[in-house]
Amino acid sequence: MKTLTLLGSTGSIGRQTLDVVRHAEGELKIHALAAAKNVKLMEEQARLFNPAVVVMMDEGAVRELRGRLRDLPIKVDQGMEGIINSVTAPQIDTVVTALSGRIGLEPTLAAIEAGKTIALANKETLVAGGDLVMSSAKKKNCKILPVDSEHSAIFQCLEEESKTIEKIILTASGGPFFGWTKEKLGTVTLEKALRHPNWEMGAKITIDSSTMMNKGLEVIEAHHLFNIEYDGIEVLIHPQSVVHSMVEYCDGSVLAQLGRPDMRLPIQYALSYPTRWKNPFERLNLRGKTLTFHEPDFEAFPALAMAYQAGRQGGTLPAVMNAANEVAVSAFLQKKVSYLGIHDIVGNVCSEHHVLDNMDLESILDADTWARRRAEEHIARLEARCSNRKDC
Amino acid sequence: MKTLTLLGSTGSIGRQTLDVVRHAEGELKIHALAAAKNVKLMEEQARLFNPAVVVMMDEGAVRELRGRLRDLPIKVDQGMEGIINSVTAPQIDTVVTALSGRIGLEPTLAAIEAGKTIALANKETLVAGGDLVMSSAKKKNCKILPVDSEHSAIFQCLEEESKTIEKIILTASGGPFFGWTKEKLGTVTLEKALRHPNWEMGAKITIDSSTMMNKGLEVIEAHHLFNIEYDGIEVLIHPQSVVHSMVEYCDGSVLAQLGRPDMRLPIQYALSYPTRWKNPFERLNLRGKTLTFHEPDFEAFPALAMAYQAGRQGGTLPAVMNAANEVAVSAFLQKKVSYLGIHDIVGNVCSEHHVLDNMDLESILDADTWARRRAEEHIARLEARCSNRKDC
Repeated sequence: MKTLTLLGSTGSIGRQTLDVVRHAEGELKIHALAAAKNVKLMEEQARLFNPAVVVMMDEGAVRELRGRLRDLPIKVDQGMEGIINSVTAPQIDTVVTALSGRIGLEPTLAAIEAGKTIALANKETLVAGGDLVMSSAKKKNCKILPVDSEHSAIFQCLEEESKTIEKIILTASGGPFFGWTKEKLGTVTLEKALRHPNWEMGAKITIDSSTMMNKGLEVIEAHHLFNIEYDGIEVLIHPQSVVHSMVEYCDGSVLAQLGRPDMRLPIQYALSYPTRWKNPFERLNLRGKTLTFHEPDFEAFPALAMAYQAGRQGGTLPAVMNAANEVAVSAFLQKKVSYLGIHDIVGNVCSEHHVLDNMDLESILDADTWARRRAEEHIARLEARCSNRKDC
Repeated sequence: MKTLTLLGSTGSIGRQTLDVVRHAEGELKIHALAAAKNVKLMEEQARLFNPAVVVMMDEGAVRELRGRLRDLPIKVDQGMEGIINSVTAPQIDTVVTALSGRIGLEPTLAAIEAGKTIALANKETLVAGGDLVMSSAKKKNCKILPVDSEHSAIFQCLEEESKTIEKIILTASGGPFFGWTKEKLGTVTLEKALRHPNWEMGAKITIDSSTMMNKGLEVIEAHHLFNIEYDGIEVLIHPQSVVHSMVEYCDGSVLAQLGRPDMRLPIQYALSYPTRWKNPFERLNLRGKTLTFHEPDFEAFPALAMAYQAGRQGGTLPAVMNAANEVAVSAFLQKKVSYLGIHDIVGNVCSEHHVLDNMDLESILDADTWARRRAEEHIARLEARCSNRKDC
């Protein structure tokens, strides 16, 4: 049996992870659950999974949850310190990092330092600090098991054959705006962008998926996870999201992993690895199905090209791109900036950044902080300009 | 370096195997080549690959080839004895069995007995004597590496995970008559049946592919190769022949092997296993591609259902079905029977057979001989009936 700490238990991946735990009878046990501030759902989860510890980032949430869980012997901890304790606890072997955003970086490093296996659903961790995380994992001989469906697909294809890879082919649904021109993308509203055709996901990743920034982050994630150069990573639009990704070997043979668009499958595989567990989830049925594949449109969706460039240049640039994107998407979700504004903000912040190659945690966090401030300044400027004009 | 004996070197798979040998510089060496009677091509191949031995089944061909190869120190052997010697020679480690039809059974057993690895392109061997061949291979600890593109796909997907398979999904192009009704199939001529949409293959397998008997033989082959019950083998029509086959695991995850319809890829993999070799063969390009999947039509193509039934019943029945099919297809190729006549002949012979469960080589060969004679009798009867009528 594996004992887990689950970071981000109230989010989309977190909830599906708990569904996997529920179905994997006797194989998985929860030591700790952590989330930002959703007290009501955390209480439900705590009562159902009976962890030793729950952690809330928000101070008020901690107070409220302590009251609600009075009748149970569950410790309620707070903030980053509580999270770090929960991922380094001697009782656990695996940490599922299903937090959204760069905030996953420090707990991931702490868990690696403590020798834990990482089931990684938090791609921003590798985008911001990929070199650092992977070299720590190597030093500590820790496994990083991908949960992102594409990376799980590649990982499942790879097995022991990593020496003979020619390239990896990362599939992308193309999002709700696949086939749209740059001009038409100027008309996108928040409501439209939140409607993803295949996957049910949190708001931030749904927006990232519509701009293709999500695929860009995944390209960088794949570079680190599979130790493959950017020239060997190809993105292929596949609107049906049945083929989750592929690996092309040196002899021209391609292995692909297919499945229904159900995140519980890659989550479960990261937790059952190296074996597989039977489950009652609906099966893929290909009868009558049509699968199509298309070249991505780098012009209409510049985020993808930007991520390749940030990844290739490396150093602190991916961390900066990611931080600016987190801030810009958040502003779009609050209707402070337009859809195309997201890309302008991220592009501007990246071009203003003096890239540092020295990649310790401090320089990553400094670059991240700087990028968030610069992004906020750009947003304020856009808002000011807008309030002076009638057409905004 | 691996040293090979190649059975069926002048056929389609044989020629492509030699192309693989040519490109796998320094990895493969030919000890012996064997073929039925194509003296001209065998002379060319002998001069190019410089084997120690060549074998021709046909007596006249042996005499002629000895004359043509007078200037070279190459031994020219004859018949089944020559073939058996060539596959048991101490110099070789691998036998490529690219013969067409049941004739591959005895050399395969002899090679296994001598401890050789088998690169198996001759599915009739497993259809006729699957239990015998696989139990011999197990006893001698011999590897049977599939060359059939579908089985190579499954084999490449499987790796070490065979315990957790839920089913295997064997893809089928559907052949040139995919979507045709039983009625329309009554109008099929030899010329139409010889035109396969995706694969360039020998005449016999091209006809088998059009009747779906080829897929039926492959179902039985897969049962033996992967030790999986018939309920766990599904056939899926995939007209583009890009996905060569798939494996569904117990967690619902599906691994698929993709590639251009180029038999050199599965041939090379069977020869390079467990590694892969770089090659200059054209790569699969999925951009702009559409892949479709359909349920097979068991009514219009009854050969597939017949093969499932023969496989499930087991004993001598698969050998009988295969023998009757070899004779019936040969008669169709000589325009002695109609297209739908193939199925009638095979069906009749199968239903007349008293199945023996005792599966030694003798009972298989006896059943095979009996089935060939019965099939010939049915053909003679059909011809006689035809010559008495004006509409034949």
